[in-house]
Amino acid sequence: MGLYDHESIEFSHDLRKLHDHVVDSTNILIFIFLLILVILTIWLFKQKRFPYLHETGLAIIYGSLFGIIIRYGFPRTNKKSLNLVANISLTQIKDLPEYIYLAVPNNTQQKFMYSYRHPRRSNEISTQDFEEKATFDPEIFFNLLLPPIIFHAGYSMKRKHFFKNFGAILMFAIIGTLISSFITGGMMYYFTSMFESIRKYFSFTDCLFFGAIISATDPVTVLAIFSEQSSTINVNLNALVFGESVLNDAVSITLAQAIEKYSGASGLNNNFDMIQFFKSIANLIGVFFASFAIGSAMGIVTALLTKFTLIRQHPHLETALFILMSYSTFLASEAAELTGIISVLFNGIVQAHYTYNNLSKESQANTKGIFSLLNFLSENFIFVYIGVTVFTYRNHQWEVPFILFSLFSVVVARAVNIYPLAFLINLSRPKENKININMQHFLLFSGLRGAMAFALAIRNTSTQARRLVLSTTLVIVIITVIVCGGLTSKMLKWLNLNKSVSSDQNHNNVLMLEENSEDENLDDSKDKSKLKKCLNKMSLFIAWQKFDHKLMKPLLTNSRPPLTETMPQFCLPLSNLLTSKEQLDSTSQYAFSKLESSSTLNQLGSNVW
Amino acid sequence: MGLYDHESIEFSHDLRKLHDHVVDSTNILIFIFLLILVILTIWLFKQKRFPYLHETGLAIIYGSLFGIIIRYGFPRTNKKSLNLVANISLTQIKDLPEYIYLAVPNNTQQKFMYSYRHPRRSNEISTQDFEEKATFDPEIFFNLLLPPIIFHAGYSMKRKHFFKNFGAILMFAIIGTLISSFITGGMMYYFTSMFESIRKYFSFTDCLFFGAIISATDPVTVLAIFSEQSSTINVNLNALVFGESVLNDAVSITLAQAIEKYSGASGLNNNFDMIQFFKSIANLIGVFFASFAIGSAMGIVTALLTKFTLIRQHPHLETALFILMSYSTFLASEAAELTGIISVLFNGIVQAHYTYNNLSKESQANTKGIFSLLNFLSENFIFVYIGVTVFTYRNHQWEVPFILFSLFSVVVARAVNIYPLAFLINLSRPKENKININMQHFLLFSGLRGAMAFALAIRNTSTQARRLVLSTTLVIVIITVIVCGGLTSKMLKWLNLNKSVSSDQNHNNVLMLEENSEDENLDDSKDKSKLKKCLNKMSLFIAWQKFDHKLMKPLLTNSRPPLTETMPQFCLPLSNLLTSKEQLDSTSQYAFSKLESSSTLNQLGSNVW
Repeated sequence: MGLYDHESIEFSHDLRKLHDHVVDSTNILIFIFLLILVILTIWLFKQKRFPYLHETGLAIIYGSLFGIIIRYGFPRTNKKSLNLVANISLTQIKDLPEYIYLAVPNNTQQKFMYSYRHPRRSNEISTQDFEEKATFDPEIFFNLLLPPIIFHAGYSMKRKHFFKNFGAILMFAIIGTLISSFITGGMMYYFTSMFESIRKYFSFTDCLFFGAIISATDPVTVLAIFSEQSSTINVNLNALVFGESVLNDAVSITLAQAIEKYSGASGLNNNFDMIQFFKSIANLIGVFFASFAIGSAMGIVTALLTKFTLIRQHPHLETALFILMSYSTFLASEAAELTGIISVLFNGIVQAHYTYNNLSKESQANTKGIFSLLNFLSENFIFVYIGVTVFTYRNHQWEVPFILFSLFSVVVARAVNIYPLAFLINLSRPKENKININMQHFLLFSGLRGAMAFALAIRNTSTQARRLVLSTTLVIVIITVIVCGGLTSKMLKWLNLNKSVSSDQNHNNVLMLEENSEDENLDDSKDKSKLKKCLNKMSLFIAWQKFDHKLMKPLLTNSRPPLTETMPQFCLPLSNLLTSKEQLDSTSQYAFSKLESSSTLNQLGSNVW
Repeated sequence: MGLYDHESIEFSHDLRKLHDHVVDSTNILIFIFLLILVILTIWLFKQKRFPYLHETGLAIIYGSLFGIIIRYGFPRTNKKSLNLVANISLTQIKDLPEYIYLAVPNNTQQKFMYSYRHPRRSNEISTQDFEEKATFDPEIFFNLLLPPIIFHAGYSMKRKHFFKNFGAILMFAIIGTLISSFITGGMMYYFTSMFESIRKYFSFTDCLFFGAIISATDPVTVLAIFSEQSSTINVNLNALVFGESVLNDAVSITLAQAIEKYSGASGLNNNFDMIQFFKSIANLIGVFFASFAIGSAMGIVTALLTKFTLIRQHPHLETALFILMSYSTFLASEAAELTGIISVLFNGIVQAHYTYNNLSKESQANTKGIFSLLNFLSENFIFVYIGVTVFTYRNHQWEVPFILFSLFSVVVARAVNIYPLAFLINLSRPKENKININMQHFLLFSGLRGAMAFALAIRNTSTQARRLVLSTTLVIVIITVIVCGGLTSKMLKWLNLNKSVSSDQNHNNVLMLEENSEDENLDDSKDKSKLKKCLNKMSLFIAWQKFDHKLMKPLLTNSRPPLTETMPQFCLPLSNLLTSKEQLDSTSQYAFSKLESSSTLNQLGSNVW
């Protein structure tokens, strides 16, 4: 028997598997211990307040400390037996092969398969064979850690204020991010043209790509900080910062992908093609709305399933169904090459607005609890990982002037985006609802870069240019999270933004129609003059509210006025079919209160129209 | 610029990533849709009972149907651009390289890294390039799906009956699994020696390996079936079947690993070495107890953390801490090359017995809810996956006589293990507590093979022998799960086992000391004559109970008699240090009731000793 007979193949394969398994387990174990440390420190912090350090900053710092330890604390291990390397060269190939099959002497039956991993610079090869296995696949960020964070954001969001500010949010998220991307990209291009050493590997499309990914202000960080401050913060400001940060991720992702595709398709020249550019913008808007549609559709399906199947009699099945439907939204969107983040955000909103009302009490509590737990763990894991990566990533491309200038251009690009857009938005807003100058300063300040920029940067580090992008992104993320994150509460105080809830109260009246809002107490008795002032502007919004009340809620939930009453008489057969037994029961039971609320609605409706 | 300049490398890398991402997302999405279907069907089944099909069987059937569709429903895709293959051969290598670096013409700076995947038969290469990506890494089973299932088993277990039957469980799990492994292995060796075609690639160690992995009766399946029947089933029988199935996994894993290591170390001869064999057995027992120790230790640390940090004021932190500590137990054990399954089982038991009492009400509900959800999802995912694998796995080695004979030998091996061991165990049991013949029949019947055997078999399919093991295991798993699983409730009825809870009540008295048991109502007034009858046999158990009551519970939880009262006077300084404020408070508050209960304890204690 030779060296490559089946016994020794089995053994060598088992040995590799065992080794990989131990390495994997140790890796995850270390991260979990860091998370445990973070949790215990957060608890300590809650006992004794440290105002200048936020828990996301803490996670990064712990991660960095650990990164330093594994980088400098251990001698390089040289596991020769598992790290044999063969160098080969193929002279006549047209494209990189996906797999290489290795034939060995004395064994004609068996070949050994190798799969493509990534490009590597020739001079680095010897140093990083082992560390290779010790990093997480960036896909984990996209597929496992981000979805629950974003879903939770949508699921627990104050929907009222989000939709009230939806126009402004879309403006900041779409126009603002485009401005920010191109200004950052342009400034970096100007800068690199002065440094021949960077210029030769950092092309114009690399500049644009960097501009796009670094323009995503981060929902993870912002949410973590705001959720603590939420009781005192101005609700409109909260909605603006949060909404922008969630939606501009999507813009950032699609823009970055468009730039990549464009640069790949146009081949090897760096000329910017205007037609191609507008195609990209159109594509971006298409992706945005298609993603929105998938998310909403999946939410509606879940609502219908939970309404008509009576699955709520078995809460554990119901909870499982809810979670699987929500997660499959993300996957469906990504599989269709859309933006899962946007889908899952709107899915969360739809689930909260409709499905939540159909769930059993147990499932309501369980789903809230599970998503806030997943959110907490994912969030802290990401920041620990960012901290670790700074020191353990072996291919950093440190270009200090580039990094310093990028910090500067990020701030400039955000200022050029915030102040003019706020001015435009204010033109169409009533006086008491303007984005005042202090809020604008805070919007500038809250442009933290975090998990999303990091995830986009680490996804592809195949060239020197991309490695420079990663190193620079890491620095910007860490500085903004630790500095801006740590100073958020102080900044709110300095800018006098943490007490002004009065401007909010004026506007509650507009939303009197939103009867089922859980988190707000609506006050009916406020003066109606201000109400009417806003109505012209809000008519689209009110129209949606009526539609929601008359069709969507009765159709998708077991809520009180059933379709049989809200829809015209000729729809009756269909309405009957789509009305659940619960709705009919509660109708007879609550007949009086329903009639009353329905007449209130009509009264309001006639005011509106 | 050439073909391999950085722009086109970036582009090609991005394209691959995007493609992989879409494939991954689609894959997971399909599994999630199957899970959703399973959930909806389970709900339907709950409405209209189908007595002969269990939900695990259902999941397998759905998976199989889907497997058939993707196997035969689609034409083979031929994604040429992403599936380029290069064949190379190295003439002078000593061992398989871990990585291959490919150099391409006109680019001296860049190489392309390929990593080792697995061996492949030469004649299969062209057929399966694409499917390669569409399978899950078996590590996912071990690292993500099994731990929550086993932890949940420990966390929600009826500890009392488990420990009452602990001797019998250990006997079945350790001795029984060894018997079963060697008998199956021996029978298969005898069988293969008659078939030259199988014999030439299926060695004696392959036979032993197969015997080891197929001897693991499956806790996942058994738990799923028993949890439904738990209200009517005999508690001792429940404890026996459940306990054996959880613990024999560990025996099976360690035995399989020992056989692998042994076969690898002894190189290329198939002679069985007795010294080596006993070393393996010793190693197996060592691994067993070390795993137990890690699990318990991590549980004790969690109990101390939750007792002394007051983290329960922040339930979300507490829940996160609890889950991370529990999961890190599994990882720590695996990283130390022990058996994570055993560690996490005993961790679950310790967490339920001590830590659970320290948790806030919210965390108690959350942890129970989360683990039962994870359990449900993991379980169904595994069975869907098993069903899919039957048809999508491309390298099946179907040897019909081998498979039929293995089914026969599995039953024989289980019979040879159950009946003699039950006889031995009965020798030392009091009359009313014997494992009667019907229970023995049921133990034979309940030897379902499931997730664990599958996970062990799919972990390594590098040789023809291992592929035969996988194919055979799949058949045995599917037959036992669908047939035995579906007939379980009928079998309980036929064997008259579903009503006899009387033998249980007799024995409750022994456990009067276990004051805090939540799931049982202890009845103090039963006649004490039977109690004394058992005491001699149970003295070790009672000693543990006293130790638990006097030291462990006061030390690890906030329960009522604090250490300051249960420990001797000279330990007072230490006892004071280890007593929490809550315990002191409740001591003064409940002084009377405590005194009373403590005196009851002493009274009982004096009865016992």
